[in-house]
Amino acid sequence: MTQHTVLTGITTTGTPHLGNYVGAIKPAIRASLDPDTASFFFLADYHALIKCEDPERVRQSTLEIASTWLALGLDPEAVTFYRQSDVPEITELTWILTCSTAKGLMNRAHAYKAAVQDNTDAGEDPDHAITMGLFSYPILMAADILMFNADKVPVGRDQVQHLEMARDIAARFNHRFGELFVLPEAVVEEHVATLPGHDGRKMSKSYNNTIPLWLPEKQLRKSIMKIVTNSLEPGEPKDPDEGALFPIFAAFADQAQRDDMRQAFADGIAWGQAKQQVFELINAELAEARARYEALIADTAAVEAVLLRGAEKARAAAAPLLQRAREAVGIRKLA
Amino acid sequence: MTQHTVLTGITTTGTPHLGNYVGAIKPAIRASLDPDTASFFFLADYHALIKCEDPERVRQSTLEIASTWLALGLDPEAVTFYRQSDVPEITELTWILTCSTAKGLMNRAHAYKAAVQDNTDAGEDPDHAITMGLFSYPILMAADILMFNADKVPVGRDQVQHLEMARDIAARFNHRFGELFVLPEAVVEEHVATLPGHDGRKMSKSYNNTIPLWLPEKQLRKSIMKIVTNSLEPGEPKDPDEGALFPIFAAFADQAQRDDMRQAFADGIAWGQAKQQVFELINAELAEARARYEALIADTAAVEAVLLRGAEKARAAAAPLLQRAREAVGIRKLA
Repeated sequence: MTQHTVLTGITTTGTPHLGNYVGAIKPAIRASLDPDTASFFFLADYHALIKCEDPERVRQSTLEIASTWLALGLDPEAVTFYRQSDVPEITELTWILTCSTAKGLMNRAHAYKAAVQDNTDAGEDPDHAITMGLFSYPILMAADILMFNADKVPVGRDQVQHLEMARDIAARFNHRFGELFVLPEAVVEEHVATLPGHDGRKMSKSYNNTIPLWLPEKQLRKSIMKIVTNSLEPGEPKDPDEGALFPIFAAFADQAQRDDMRQAFADGIAWGQAKQQVFELINAELAEARARYEALIADTAAVEAVLLRGAEKARAAAAPLLQRAREAVGIRKLA
Repeated sequence: MTQHTVLTGITTTGTPHLGNYVGAIKPAIRASLDPDTASFFFLADYHALIKCEDPERVRQSTLEIASTWLALGLDPEAVTFYRQSDVPEITELTWILTCSTAKGLMNRAHAYKAAVQDNTDAGEDPDHAITMGLFSYPILMAADILMFNADKVPVGRDQVQHLEMARDIAARFNHRFGELFVLPEAVVEEHVATLPGHDGRKMSKSYNNTIPLWLPEKQLRKSIMKIVTNSLEPGEPKDPDEGALFPIFAAFADQAQRDDMRQAFADGIAWGQAKQQVFELINAELAEARARYEALIADTAAVEAVLLRGAEKARAAAAPLLQRAREAVGIRKLA
């Protein structure tokens, strides 16, 4: 029996990196194997438009992200895996929800307020360069969630407020037009693995410190060799809790491997040797999937076909609920 | 050769009254007969949701307005006559446009600013009870217009700003993503016939002074008898330019009839007699159409079928343009 519906969206603006893999993709795919869960995964290309004005980037990112999840074992038969823009029910529901969303609610969104603060600090008009996409994106996100009656939405801390907004919007609609939407709950991964990048800060595109997930073997090795370390010589004991190298290793290692590496640090392993071990560990975990990824990314028709089949499943789930939402507000057949 | 595309939307919240007929419906149907024009008429039910939280009212108004236009001679074969909510391309385009619309543009909308002013005057929070529907409705309106490459949009003075916004939104999109949308022009009817209501103020639902268009004959007579006049007795000369009665008559009369009635006023026609003539004139104009209206409103399946055929035509026109808009922003097939 399906007890929970879990929904996960991935904005299609970037190229997956090791931080995405460890912190989001791997745990999400593992969670999707739970037989008590109906999982919805979607490529949020209509969210991508908010921050990305490079059309080819959106398409390329969609291809890379879809291929990544499939290569890493997401089973499109077991879950519903679709591209947001293939489900027109979502933008239609967005408008219906727009009509019963208080503007005051959007005024309080952190992302919007931060942009206003930046403008104010810079002496600009508060809404300078802010689009309606940025301002009203919590409504699109509410539609994404409510469309499938998702009751669990795994989010980072920064997204908790948006989940609260989706609940607010759903509750307000239910109050006015009758119980229709399930109120979703944020599932905050308190212990989410965040991976440091080359420079020790959180691995993130915005810091330009990422290790792309699907680098070919040689380039992956090169990239790992660039992880910043200190100037301690071979033979000098090293602190695993300082710098990025050990945490990156640890994210891919089991307990015994972690213990061994801690010992090696204490014994003064040379940085180059340690990095070689990090490379070997990561490469071992990714090599097979990388081959699948490379095959997928070269077979765009196959990936497209998977997404279109996913969209059919998603639309079959969405259409009856949209119908009920339409009827609730008065969008009704005459006969 | 079709030279212009003209688009007209009718919000489905009200029951048509004589003022709508004289000021909007009759001239629009006449204009639709121009063979150099491709006319799009739509029932704006997704706009209705912004101001109407009574679902059955939205449905009933849709039925009444559709039946009205058909009864009065709108030819659904010659024009494209559809219900907005039957064209999901419109809400999808709305989101695409949302992403390239400046929030600052919406801040300046008259309807929004008026609502803020009312709140401020009442000592409320500026955005008190303002929905995102009210705030972002110019984007939906832009999508309505741009979706069909309408170049002429007949509007009242109060809607000119929204047309300017649709132009702004289109121009910004074209600038960023390549020429795609036709920039629409407002066609402001400077000499639009506005009809006074019972009390002499403009006939309007908000003044509660309307004469519904499709009152049965006896009730129409009764309603006309209630038009407010002064206390001049039969035989006393009356001023046709004072009060509502003569203007209402004039809107339905030809020049000779108007001249005769002016003379009758000067000759001291009794108010009751004048009203009887007003009734007879209006009833003569509406009687046949009323019979058609009554038949239509009783045959909801037939009206629904007309709207669904209209939606097919509308979607056939909308789909290729939406496809181009999607591709322009990066919502592209992978293969």
